[in-house]
Amino acid sequence: MQPYDQNNIFAKILRGEIPCHKVYEDNHTLAFMDVMPQAKGHVLVIPKFEAVELTDMNSEFIQAVFSTAQKIICAQRKVLQREGIVQLQLSGKEAGQSVFHYHIHLIPASVHELGKHEGRVADQSELATLAAQLSAELDQPTIK
Amino acid sequence: MQPYDQNNIFAKILRGEIPCHKVYEDNHTLAFMDVMPQAKGHVLVIPKFEAVELTDMNSEFIQAVFSTAQKIICAQRKVLQREGIVQLQLSGKEAGQSVFHYHIHLIPASVHELGKHEGRVADQSELATLAAQLSAELDQPTIK
Repeated sequence: MQPYDQNNIFAKILRGEIPCHKVYEDNHTLAFMDVMPQAKGHVLVIPKFEAVELTDMNSEFIQAVFSTAQKIICAQRKVLQREGIVQLQLSGKEAGQSVFHYHIHLIPASVHELGKHEGRVADQSELATLAAQLSAELDQPTIK
Repeated sequence: MQPYDQNNIFAKILRGEIPCHKVYEDNHTLAFMDVMPQAKGHVLVIPKFEAVELTDMNSEFIQAVFSTAQKIICAQRKVLQREGIVQLQLSGKEAGQSVFHYHIHLIPASVHELGKHEGRVADQSELATLAAQLSAELDQPTIK
């Protein structure tokens, strides 16, 4: 739909030019806390790939972002003690997309709690604590 | 999180026991009109796989459902003449999931228009027309 802008905020995070509260990283993806959470524990998963939205993604990175999302959901449920996770992706400005690098919102919440994204920036120390808790959970050996 | 119930409504649609307004089908996925649309042109994409939610999906079916979603988004934009597509997946009853077979909502709308899922059942003839229009669009050769 639109060309990829190298100066979008998530591109800057991927290049390490601005900080984030990192939860998880691998060769293809990065997961970090949303600084304007729609609910406590709101995480974003992004590909290390220049995609504005889903239709720009290739199969390798689709695989990678949803594999990471699966891991994050399991960690959110343990750390936040909430069963419900809203997974949201906005394609296009009209839909409400505000950063034009593909991202998956993973929000421990009910869908009926959403729609407050114009909210406040969260307390940084709270975000740092949550990132550390989620990250620690992801480091646990998985027992199914 | 919970065992797969063979009698959920999407399982019945996949078995052909109840009808749907089909938009697209392949070996791994089915796409059809949501009968309680949150906006005009609201489509659901489901895997032909017994998954309650994302964490139950394997890589083959993740690939397939998002590949189908990419196709549907392109068709929705042409038919509905809306650029914004909200892509929503609810994991768990607490999140608002009401059918326990994994499904991707593709809603031509702004995220700020959502939250009205408790709405009315849509006019069946309108759904049939939309399904036919989207399906016809998907049959077009893709020119990028």
